[in-house]
Amino acid sequence: MLDVSCSFGSSVESRPLSRDGGAHVELGGDERAGLRTSSTHTALHGRGGQHKHRAERRQLRPPKTPVSMANVSKKVSWSSRDEDPGAQGEDTPLLNGASAARYTRQLSGSSVFHIGRLSSVDLEEENTEQESKVISRPKEIPHNEKLLSLKYESLDYDNSENQLFLEEERRMSYMGFRCLEISRWVVCGLIGFLTGLIACFIDIVVENLAGVKYHVIKQNIEKFTEVGGLSISLILWAVLNSAFVMVGSIFVAFFEPIAAGSGIPQIKCYLNGVKIPRVVRLKTLVVKVGGVICSVVGGLAVGKEGPMIHSGAVVAAGVSQGRSTSLKKDFKIFEYFRRDTEKRDFVSAGAAAGVSAAFGAPVGGVLFSLEEGASFWNQLLTWRIFFASMMSTFTLNFFLSIYNEKPGDLSNPGLINFGRFESDSVEYNLYEIPLFICMGALGGLLGALFNVLNYWLTIFRIRYIHRPCLQVMEAMLVAAVTATVSFTMIYFSNDCQPLGPDQSEEYPLQLFCDDGEYNSMATAFFNTPERSVRSLFHNPPGTYNPLTLGVFTLSYFFLACWTYGLTVSAGVFIPCLLIGAAWGRLFGILLSAIASGDSIWADPGKYALIGAAAQLGGVVRMTLSLTVIMVEATGNVTYGLPIMLVLMTAKIVGDYFVEGLYDIHIKLQSVPFLHWEAPATSHSLTAREVMSSPVTCFSRIEKVGTIVDILSNTSTNHNGFPVVPKVSEDEPGRICGLILRSQLIVLLKHKVFVERAQSRLQQRRLQLKDFRDAYPRFPPIQSIHVSQDERECMMDLTQFMNPTPYTVPQETSLPRVFKLFRALGLRHLVVIDHENRVVGLVTRKDLARYHLGKHGLEELQLAQT
Amino acid sequence: MLDVSCSFGSSVESRPLSRDGGAHVELGGDERAGLRTSSTHTALHGRGGQHKHRAERRQLRPPKTPVSMANVSKKVSWSSRDEDPGAQGEDTPLLNGASAARYTRQLSGSSVFHIGRLSSVDLEEENTEQESKVISRPKEIPHNEKLLSLKYESLDYDNSENQLFLEEERRMSYMGFRCLEISRWVVCGLIGFLTGLIACFIDIVVENLAGVKYHVIKQNIEKFTEVGGLSISLILWAVLNSAFVMVGSIFVAFFEPIAAGSGIPQIKCYLNGVKIPRVVRLKTLVVKVGGVICSVVGGLAVGKEGPMIHSGAVVAAGVSQGRSTSLKKDFKIFEYFRRDTEKRDFVSAGAAAGVSAAFGAPVGGVLFSLEEGASFWNQLLTWRIFFASMMSTFTLNFFLSIYNEKPGDLSNPGLINFGRFESDSVEYNLYEIPLFICMGALGGLLGALFNVLNYWLTIFRIRYIHRPCLQVMEAMLVAAVTATVSFTMIYFSNDCQPLGPDQSEEYPLQLFCDDGEYNSMATAFFNTPERSVRSLFHNPPGTYNPLTLGVFTLSYFFLACWTYGLTVSAGVFIPCLLIGAAWGRLFGILLSAIASGDSIWADPGKYALIGAAAQLGGVVRMTLSLTVIMVEATGNVTYGLPIMLVLMTAKIVGDYFVEGLYDIHIKLQSVPFLHWEAPATSHSLTAREVMSSPVTCFSRIEKVGTIVDILSNTSTNHNGFPVVPKVSEDEPGRICGLILRSQLIVLLKHKVFVERAQSRLQQRRLQLKDFRDAYPRFPPIQSIHVSQDERECMMDLTQFMNPTPYTVPQETSLPRVFKLFRALGLRHLVVIDHENRVVGLVTRKDLARYHLGKHGLEELQLAQT
Repeated sequence: MLDVSCSFGSSVESRPLSRDGGAHVELGGDERAGLRTSSTHTALHGRGGQHKHRAERRQLRPPKTPVSMANVSKKVSWSSRDEDPGAQGEDTPLLNGASAARYTRQLSGSSVFHIGRLSSVDLEEENTEQESKVISRPKEIPHNEKLLSLKYESLDYDNSENQLFLEEERRMSYMGFRCLEISRWVVCGLIGFLTGLIACFIDIVVENLAGVKYHVIKQNIEKFTEVGGLSISLILWAVLNSAFVMVGSIFVAFFEPIAAGSGIPQIKCYLNGVKIPRVVRLKTLVVKVGGVICSVVGGLAVGKEGPMIHSGAVVAAGVSQGRSTSLKKDFKIFEYFRRDTEKRDFVSAGAAAGVSAAFGAPVGGVLFSLEEGASFWNQLLTWRIFFASMMSTFTLNFFLSIYNEKPGDLSNPGLINFGRFESDSVEYNLYEIPLFICMGALGGLLGALFNVLNYWLTIFRIRYIHRPCLQVMEAMLVAAVTATVSFTMIYFSNDCQPLGPDQSEEYPLQLFCDDGEYNSMATAFFNTPERSVRSLFHNPPGTYNPLTLGVFTLSYFFLACWTYGLTVSAGVFIPCLLIGAAWGRLFGILLSAIASGDSIWADPGKYALIGAAAQLGGVVRMTLSLTVIMVEATGNVTYGLPIMLVLMTAKIVGDYFVEGLYDIHIKLQSVPFLHWEAPATSHSLTAREVMSSPVTCFSRIEKVGTIVDILSNTSTNHNGFPVVPKVSEDEPGRICGLILRSQLIVLLKHKVFVERAQSRLQQRRLQLKDFRDAYPRFPPIQSIHVSQDERECMMDLTQFMNPTPYTVPQETSLPRVFKLFRALGLRHLVVIDHENRVVGLVTRKDLARYHLGKHGLEELQLAQT
Repeated sequence: MLDVSCSFGSSVESRPLSRDGGAHVELGGDERAGLRTSSTHTALHGRGGQHKHRAERRQLRPPKTPVSMANVSKKVSWSSRDEDPGAQGEDTPLLNGASAARYTRQLSGSSVFHIGRLSSVDLEEENTEQESKVISRPKEIPHNEKLLSLKYESLDYDNSENQLFLEEERRMSYMGFRCLEISRWVVCGLIGFLTGLIACFIDIVVENLAGVKYHVIKQNIEKFTEVGGLSISLILWAVLNSAFVMVGSIFVAFFEPIAAGSGIPQIKCYLNGVKIPRVVRLKTLVVKVGGVICSVVGGLAVGKEGPMIHSGAVVAAGVSQGRSTSLKKDFKIFEYFRRDTEKRDFVSAGAAAGVSAAFGAPVGGVLFSLEEGASFWNQLLTWRIFFASMMSTFTLNFFLSIYNEKPGDLSNPGLINFGRFESDSVEYNLYEIPLFICMGALGGLLGALFNVLNYWLTIFRIRYIHRPCLQVMEAMLVAAVTATVSFTMIYFSNDCQPLGPDQSEEYPLQLFCDDGEYNSMATAFFNTPERSVRSLFHNPPGTYNPLTLGVFTLSYFFLACWTYGLTVSAGVFIPCLLIGAAWGRLFGILLSAIASGDSIWADPGKYALIGAAAQLGGVVRMTLSLTVIMVEATGNVTYGLPIMLVLMTAKIVGDYFVEGLYDIHIKLQSVPFLHWEAPATSHSLTAREVMSSPVTCFSRIEKVGTIVDILSNTSTNHNGFPVVPKVSEDEPGRICGLILRSQLIVLLKHKVFVERAQSRLQQRRLQLKDFRDAYPRFPPIQSIHVSQDERECMMDLTQFMNPTPYTVPQETSLPRVFKLFRALGLRHLVVIDHENRVVGLVTRKDLARYHLGKHGLEELQLAQT
């Protein structure tokens, strides 16, 4: 009676997604529990009896055909260039301990389902030499945003509440929790402090090196202006730039490719819950800092703000764990924080501290972290994030004030200082609002153009420029071109302006201007971008003539677009601000020319600010956090409303054409990124259709041999295994727990076998500490040696599994599954039938596969890497 | 084998909470599913077999003893004064349709478990006359924050995804969802616009009325200063104030008591997920607006900012539903939004719009909503909230600029304008930071003192002043005393200051000062509080002498403390700011006296600002949102860092002594408020201990008579019923759905019986629209007439129940249950055993009961009202 009663789900009309059969390759993924038969199949047998999965599995398995090369997507990724035969140890551990021969054999001969990255518990792990041998791979096909990579693992934001954990928590007194809370605050303070220090270091080094560089070139130009032969100056400039950029690019390309770019997309993914390999390592931080200094000094159209966010995140991940695996140093502190849940919280704080240091915007930093990362809003966590942000901007401020020999004067809140907008000059009027909105729309358009161009360029780069030496050469080329373009612009510009009495220009180039005058194009080009932005905002009306601004906008737009995505460590914020400020100022000048009667309101600086906001908003598509960042950076809230309006308009217009720049790059990496909500029209899908099924389960008391075999088995590269009372071939067992691969590995390593416990041989009770010590780089299964005797032992998983994993019935709609998954930051969600028996497992990739395309709901393909 | 396998939970040490037996009365609550035996019992039989609940229930029920009066908690609440025999229709529907006789009989004779509010599906419903007959009750015992009221129902933030809902969602095209999204934006725009208009209205009316009042009094004072007999002026002032306050207080006390106070605690509760009766009704809004005008004009120590937040929330709840039940008008729009999920989102937007209008702080508004309300952070929702905030401040700005005859000049962003802090005058130095922190600590201390005093006062009021006429009289007394104190202060003050050339004082009182001078005490007292704050911030050094400030601080502190909690509609923000500004300025003056050499840095205005922040932070204990609000209100981000530091210090210091003012009032109302996290030391509790058990379940096809009986049964006042295939007395059934009382009521009302469907008699298929039309005021079960024939019919619940309710196994730890419940905003969470059988139900009250007290984890008592 009970059995038939809950099958009403079958009366609901179900519409399995129509799939494009041909191009659809499904590969066993690292977290995907088991082999996936096509969803039509699942839907089919999901209806009748879920009991017979295991039996059906063999029959339903598609015929074993060799994989056609075109179907296996191989891609160059942020973190690896595994097609490069020279780079050892840098590879994604595609084959984690399994022998190379086995891999190649499978690739050529066996089912498609056996292809795929073999399980590595943690991609951040260091691979031993023999594991990272490079195997010849099929030639890669281009990146495709319609793919979803199986390479990335998820973070687990859900504590595994096993008996060990509960016992520890129960032992802990109230004071213990208080101390933990206090140490969280201490860690956040440290994160802020160190992030601020790093920002300070970058700023001082960049300022000094750039100062030396511009000084040398200026002297050279002055010398050759008189005697002729300015081409020598050009060469000097280009060579200097290229040299700096070369150093930075070599750093990045050869030592840590993940440090390329601004790092914001990577941090976004991390906060979303995707483990990007090596993204929060100390080595990455060092390369990042070195790289950003070189690229900014090298005169590229880049900023040093984006990388700060990444740096902050790395600092946070390092400090909060109380040890560095790179340095092989364990301070034995903060051990409680060695799990994904805590670590991700701290990384949010670090990212916020980075924003805060970059823009002097602590509130903006908090909002950035929340807008990009948080799913579950927690007040206490937010305050800690806020504290870290505050500490960071304060530290930066304090040390810069000492460096500037005005100790105690806290007037340098961030790396980029927009300068003070005085209230009188920046008032706006109601009739300017439509103008602002127009500028927002223009920003959205230009931003979309920028993104589209950069998208094509990235595709091109992925296809053709993936060798480190090529990447370095491209970076050098861009540096040289940037110098050449700048020089040409300055050379052919005849926009001479009188030198102000206050000598506000840092490096005024006289060139062909009269004495007491300087070349105004040089203000924009012959300067660090931050200074150029500031002068566009604040120089009095008439400093620039429209032609200068127009030409500058155009050339800088393409330069910046070319530059973003180079193998250098650099951000896109400042170039966008600069482009926007230039056309915004141009807009303001044209306006005041039109409304010549009353030109006071059309202050070009004001329009430069609005233009900067519009352009940046059009490219990165942030609204709330960016508004606050801009307001905090200008130090004046009067502009809050117009900036909001502009950013919203830019976002709406831009979204009509193409996604934001960061999202494009995330998509190109095929990261299984979960958005805020399930696609609107996905109510027709249920857990039954999206889940991976059947699932490999373990018995509560399982034979060691079985465990080792399943973990080593290349075809069942799962990371989470439901535990049932007793695995049977006939019907799925009732769920009674969930155990992770990482936990099993630790258990195997410590040989926690039932027989040993009984014989009281060298038996130390396994503690949480053992799991924490292994976190986050759990050894691969192959490094654990299990003797033949031991294979016959039994392992009791009861103590170690999570006895209360979250479950959903198989009739649950996709949006409901999605909401649960997203709100709790899950990694595995067990799907059960009405008798509590395991019928499937939902992982991040199962959810990220569905997205809204042009033709309604679409399903992404799964790719091997 | 399967059965024994998952019972490992019993090996975990379980520590049932020690309970204080005597005072612990447990009463059947409105959402609590079934009768609760003491948790010792639950733990006891929870161990062995959960199967025999139903059988055990009768045996375990405690002996039926009459309730001792002292054990039944009866309290005066925000929303009702049900002990007042005169106020009909204002009562909480303690007895929802059951006859009075029955109630009294039960009260006197039957088990304690039968006492309690009988089920009303929605407390907002209008009670018909016969239902609200007042029954004599036991004399109330004082409010006690150790109680948890069962009166409040929860909002359901989880959609009931039944077949009707899923069919509708599946029918909807992508464009349909786009349109919905657009209408959400439109609604948010409307909310912002209307909130702005209301703020504008309040501001203009207050300004004008206050202007008239001060003008009259000033003339009178001037007249009698010359001829003597100033006591007549005092009487005039006191009478005028009392008259205004009387009107406002009568409004509130007799028409809508829920409109008393600032409304922030109520909105906090609503956003937390507790349905406070009548809090978002149109009538409440009207009373609130009228009341706040009267109390501000009446010269009380109150502000008009807090009530704006409540007003915004009401506007949002009204607009988003596209109808007003008070006006009996249905616009037939936005029907999709008629459910708790959508409504709560809009109310967040409304609250944000209110903050934004009050302080001209759109970002602060968003953060306020998030800090107080949100659990699941959703980017799209946040943007809509932001849009509403923006619209609200913009509307206010725009209309005030027209009113001030400077159209287009958007310089009035909020109701309170702190005035512009110019950058030069407000710079601070590193060595001032410790001073700021000291001020923060002082603010925390004073705030704690304020809260403690107000707490005692509130207890006193609850005990003795609960008749409306007494309340009105108290309000008038306070008004008169305020006037008297002010007058006395002004009279005895001899702090004369020269009139500035710019006549910046609005109502300068010369009194006994020389010609060309004015009484500086009058600036503080003889003014609306907003203006006083502004003059404390901006008047040049030397305007006030220290004695004036000290006396003012002291007297205003006690006045404000006395005023908060009166039965008038008023906020506490401005009084706190004023107190803080006064002692902050005093602090600044003393500082510059000490460091007389270099007195430039000790600008009293700056210290007034810091003091204001400290005092406000000490009282309300907000940090992030308040920082942003203060920064936006001052229009200058330079002060961001010090304000943050000050607010954090104030919070830490204040929290050491007592909770924030709003939290105190929420606790005193015994609202089942869920905090962000479960108490730290609650890992020892599991779902088994906290759940209500046994649960009344329905069969999937249930007899109408049974349903009516259960719904009408006074002892099973549940709101959610698990649905099982077939209810059996012997063992609990397997969960296959969850149905709400409200849904059952609609089904009964439309007589959706299986027989009718088969006979095709007048059978219209029930649609979601029918449920939406009934939302949110579902009729009580007693108003539905079911004939004896119909009682024999069957009802098929399959279509209407939520087939996939969230469930947890009974071994789940409390923090885990809490997290799921809080993150998803649930109302019911079904607890199942390892065979998926219903063993209990967790509701908000089950979770809110546990809190960290002085002696570790404590359990709150449950109270009847």
